[in-house]
Amino acid sequence: MEQLPSFNQLAHELGRLPGIGPKTAQRLAYHLLRASDERIEALKKSLTAVKELIRECPQCHSFTEELDLCKLCSDPHRHQESICIVEDPADISRIEGSGVFRGQYHVLHGALNPLEGVGPEDLKISSLFDRLANNPGIKEVILALDADLEGDTTVLYLAKILREKGLKTTRIAHGVPIGGDIDYIDNRTLGRALENRVQL
Amino acid sequence: MEQLPSFNQLAHELGRLPGIGPKTAQRLAYHLLRASDERIEALKKSLTAVKELIRECPQCHSFTEELDLCKLCSDPHRHQESICIVEDPADISRIEGSGVFRGQYHVLHGALNPLEGVGPEDLKISSLFDRLANNPGIKEVILALDADLEGDTTVLYLAKILREKGLKTTRIAHGVPIGGDIDYIDNRTLGRALENRVQL
Repeated sequence: MEQLPSFNQLAHELGRLPGIGPKTAQRLAYHLLRASDERIEALKKSLTAVKELIRECPQCHSFTEELDLCKLCSDPHRHQESICIVEDPADISRIEGSGVFRGQYHVLHGALNPLEGVGPEDLKISSLFDRLANNPGIKEVILALDADLEGDTTVLYLAKILREKGLKTTRIAHGVPIGGDIDYIDNRTLGRALENRVQL
Repeated sequence: MEQLPSFNQLAHELGRLPGIGPKTAQRLAYHLLRASDERIEALKKSLTAVKELIRECPQCHSFTEELDLCKLCSDPHRHQESICIVEDPADISRIEGSGVFRGQYHVLHGALNPLEGVGPEDLKISSLFDRLANNPGIKEVILALDADLEGDTTVLYLAKILREKGLKTTRIAHGVPIGGDIDYIDNRTLGRALENRVQL
């Protein structure tokens, strides 16, 4: 197969996907080479559609196929009192899946990472502050960022400014997962679970 | 992301690839959604190219981008005395990588599988016999098929007919892999290695 430039090119493109190594890329390319023309057309069409149809919601910066605000932003049944800040559009599905939150969302598209040069101006932070200024009905900002160094940095940065603005700012709890066996929980998670203990 | 039909469609198409489960498909679709337009174009172009440029060699049935015979079939430096039978075009790269064989190839495009209804007429077997009849220079047929049930069935079937035609028929050896620790080799491989022991 080394003598087929178009095959190698396809394997190269597939190998750029996350979690796809050179061997897997070759296997996938080989599968696609043998797949029917209809399947290849369907894959190409769906690639085109994703690029053409999916836009960023001008308000929450999540992904949407709507021409104006996304379905969540334009849903009149969702309340306007609290806004949940997430790093990625995919995080919204997770939180919606919990069924607990019925307010607004705002996607930062990343988290602060000074070591890699990601500063506040690279995230949707100024648009968050504009949104908060234009919507005095928002009473609480819930930070649902990842529990890693970048998430923690972003939480500290945002919490300081939000407190100065007099807004109630909360962060989702970290602790033992439901169904989790304490024997198998790492020390930092267990420490956080102890610190954040809830009175019964 | 559940509310984006084009995203779900792309994840569905990616989920049809071998070894890609629903979660991985979602992750890949998400990555592609955020990839640059140039990368998506490059991926679509390489999918088109693979389908348009790659054909089957009319002689050995391997894949090629040549208009007539593939590079291996038309190489005047390769000898015509032996022909190596493989299941898939990808197997040729493996054997070429060993650097030991310099003869001709023939790709069956599969192996006999009576349980799934794959018979001799579904493989490139009649074209192999035509090729052997038209090339009396071929003295040896080397069967380099997989060491599984389908490969074994195909070897038995072909060996019987080839012996009747008076052709020298061999099968590649099975045994302990180079660098393999005997402690970790399965019983059947070790049994085969003992049966096929070589005099020193």
